Formats: sequence, C-alpha cells, structure tokens
Amino acid sequence: MRRSPQESQVCSIARALGELGERWTLLILREAYFGTRQFTEFHRRLGVARNILTARLNGLVKAGILTRAVAPGRGGPRVYRLTDKGRDALPAFVALMQWGDRWLDEGREAPVIIVEAATGRPIEAVCVRAGDGRPLAPRELRVIAGPGASAEIRQRFGAADAAPSAKASPPRG
Amino acid sequence: MRRSPQESQVCSIARALGELGERWTLLILREAYFGTRQFTEFHRRLGVARNILTARLNGLVKAGILTRAVAPGRGGPRVYRLTDKGRDALPAFVALMQWGDRWLDEGREAPVIIVEAATGRPIEAVCVRAGDGRPLAPRELRVIAGPGASAEIRQRFGAADAAPSAKASPPRG
Repeated sequence: MRRSPQESQVCSIARALGELGERWTLLILREAYFGTRQFTEFHRRLGVARNILTARLNGLVKAGILTRAVAPGRGGPRVYRLTDKGRDALPAFVALMQWGDRWLDEGREAPVIIVEAATGRPIEAVCVRAGDGRPLAPRELRVIAGPGASAEIRQRFGAADAAPSAKASPPRG
Repeated sequence: MRRSPQESQVCSIARALGELGERWTLLILREAYFGTRQFTEFHRRLGVARNILTARLNGLVKAGILTRAVAPGRGGPRVYRLTDKGRDALPAFVALMQWGDRWLDEGREAPVIIVEAATGRPIEAVCVRAGDGRPLAPRELRVIAGPGASAEIRQRFGAADAAPSAKASPPRG
C-alpha cells in the first residue's frame, strides 16, 4: 500500500495506525488490557494461528508497547506485559470499544463493561473535553497547525498561534 | 483471516475494527473530521488510488458512518458528510491521535492540534474517567461481564452484578 507524503505529515493518526492499525494487533492489545500475559493464553483466547500471533507479538515488543520475558525455570512460559506506552493507549481502546457498544450492537447488549475497581461502577463514556474539563461537541472543535506542521499544513489549517477567527476547518458537527 | 467465535463475543473492539480498522478507512475518517467533503479532495489529500478510495468511501456509507449526496447541477461533485455515528467516533479518533503525538513523534512535534473553536485553547488529553468525572489510571479499572455476555465471558470476567471483590482481570497498570 502506497503511502503519500502528505499522509505522514498531516497528523499522528497515520503513524499510530502503523503500530496499532492491524486487526490482530489491536485484539492482542485488548487481551493485554484484560490481563492476558502468556503466549498460550493469547493463542487460546484469540484463536489466531501461532505464526501470526508470534509475528504480531514481536511487532508490539519492537514498538515498545509490550515487553517480553521468560518466566524462570525449565520451559518457563513467555510472558508479555504492557509498557507505559502500551497502557497509555487505553483511552483510545476504551473509546473505540464504547463506540462499538453504542453503534454496533446488532441488538445485543455490551458483552463486557469496564468499571472502576474500587466502586464497581461503570466508567463514563470517553469524550473530548476543553482544558477546563467541559465536554465539547465535534462542532465546537477546530483543527490548527501544530508546532511540527509543514508549510502545507500551515496553509491548510492556519498557524498554531492564529486567533479563533482565523481560517481553519473545524470537524463537522 | 479466520475469526474465532470468542473474538466476536468478547467485546466490541473486534466489531469496531470491522468498520474502522483499515488504514485508509481511518485516514478517510480523519479527513472527514478535518472538513473534507468532496471525492476529489479526499483523493488529493490522501494520495490514494481512486478505486481504493471509492471502495472505502462506499464501505463507510454502507456502515452508516458517512452519507453521500451529489451536489445539484450538471456534473455536481459527490459530497460525503459524517453521520451521527461517524461524529460519535471522534473521541476514539482524538485519543488515538494524541497517543501518536505523545509516543510516536520521532523527535517531531505535533503536526496539528485540536483546539476549542471558541477559545482557541488546546483540548485536554482524552482520558478514562469514573462516572463522577475523576480521571482513572488503568490499574483502577476492572473488566466485568456485561448484560450481553456469553457464558464463557461470565466465567472469565465475573457477572455484571458481582461485587468489586469478585474475581475479574483488571487491566494491568
């Protein structure tokens, strides 16, 4: 698949997809969030071929999202743990899961729920908020060029220091 | 790619990936959030082959994430707009983009920034919160079986009405 020069410049989505945007990779990450650590458990839970699982786990280790260790002792299992980088992808994961629960249920209710461990109460729906915590609708947002913007992006979205009235394309809401 | 029976049951991530988890699909969605509406604009921005773009746009329309209309007049352009379902995926998109900005910058700074339109101030980092708004770390979360859980999921994660002390696998934090 060809990557255009623009694509890698416009935002971090393209780069994030390079590390997470593969079906099995994200399902492996799901299992890691759910507490799975051993190769054999990943294999059993996902029903994925061992060679594919090995390749995807190796990719996640290389990307710094999981670490691999071999448990002490003869024939100790390979154990995979989330790194800080891997744990930090949790909001994206939870937001995607909640979106699936809201829109893709096909008449079913949520198979799993994420709750606060201390209270047992469901977490809130992940949303986009202003710096002071107010929830924001898509139409209240605007995209502007960041400090790492190319000339093309600055032309498209306006400079980072532009006033709110500057030309820029808001997400449609 | 074989899909295991477990996979479609465990959570909505697998199903969400079925609609969004393809590289070009998510990049098209990115463009839609950034304000792109016309086929020719998607084509120019992404540098993707027309036949692939057509197939992915058709898929997004079929999934109810975009609507398609033809602008009035002779040779009017095809115009794609986000539906409520499409707009509702924004938190997942923003969370993924912010994760990319934090972890994948390769020494670069963020190419684009999302701000509140009214103030021009950057939005906050998307995070997971309790029902009362407190931010929660991964280690403070727990996965439990939901109302749509299969017997296997209930066995794995504990019932939805289980007390906080019930056996369940928390995400590792």
